[in-house]
Amino acid sequence: MADAINTDETRELIGSNKVEGTAVYGLDGERLGTITNFMVDKRSGQAEYAVMQFGGFLGIGADYYPVPWSKLSYSVEHGGYVVDLDKDTLEDAPRYSNDDEPQYDADYDREVNSYYGVTY
Amino acid sequence: MADAINTDETRELIGSNKVEGTAVYGLDGERLGTITNFMVDKRSGQAEYAVMQFGGFLGIGADYYPVPWSKLSYSVEHGGYVVDLDKDTLEDAPRYSNDDEPQYDADYDREVNSYYGVTY
Repeated sequence: MADAINTDETRELIGSNKVEGTAVYGLDGERLGTITNFMVDKRSGQAEYAVMQFGGFLGIGADYYPVPWSKLSYSVEHGGYVVDLDKDTLEDAPRYSNDDEPQYDADYDREVNSYYGVTY
Repeated sequence: MADAINTDETRELIGSNKVEGTAVYGLDGERLGTITNFMVDKRSGQAEYAVMQFGGFLGIGADYYPVPWSKLSYSVEHGGYVVDLDKDTLEDAPRYSNDDEPQYDADYDREVNSYYGVTY
């Protein structure tokens, strides 16, 4: 469904606190989860990963999935982000639980980006 | 005090929710306020403005000041951001109250960036 990724190309700003909680959809329009927060370079201010939550029951037990920001498209139609990911891909994706946040260091960058096939 | 802007040049990521609430210092090391949130390009993920709160009594009546992200330096020493601003500059700076958030459009970009002498 091509119009699921119908994006508005004009620059638009959004509050960081409004990104947190924004819904994420698959290419087929299915709601996959939400953005918990995003990891940003302290200095440049560039967002590098959206941290998403998928699954879990009423949010209990849901893990956190860092997804390279470049995998996201903003969908005006959905008022949220669309990612080219399906549930099979997510099954083996890098994730962590609430009390086990990793160091976002060079090794972790490599792990996450190579999982999603992103060159960085 | 030159070492107030002693920055660590290695890339480091921070959660968006941790930027929110981070302290902001002047070049002289004085604590000026905090970052409430930041305005980020929905698509590129680039932070364009830190929205700061200065003054107010116990946070009551404090206005929001959008400051171009490029005006911020991250200070390892302070564990926060340093801005080359003094209270006189802030007195006339663009600001808004809680119930009066502006449209962050091209006109507002021009107003804020020209106030701070930032080319964009």
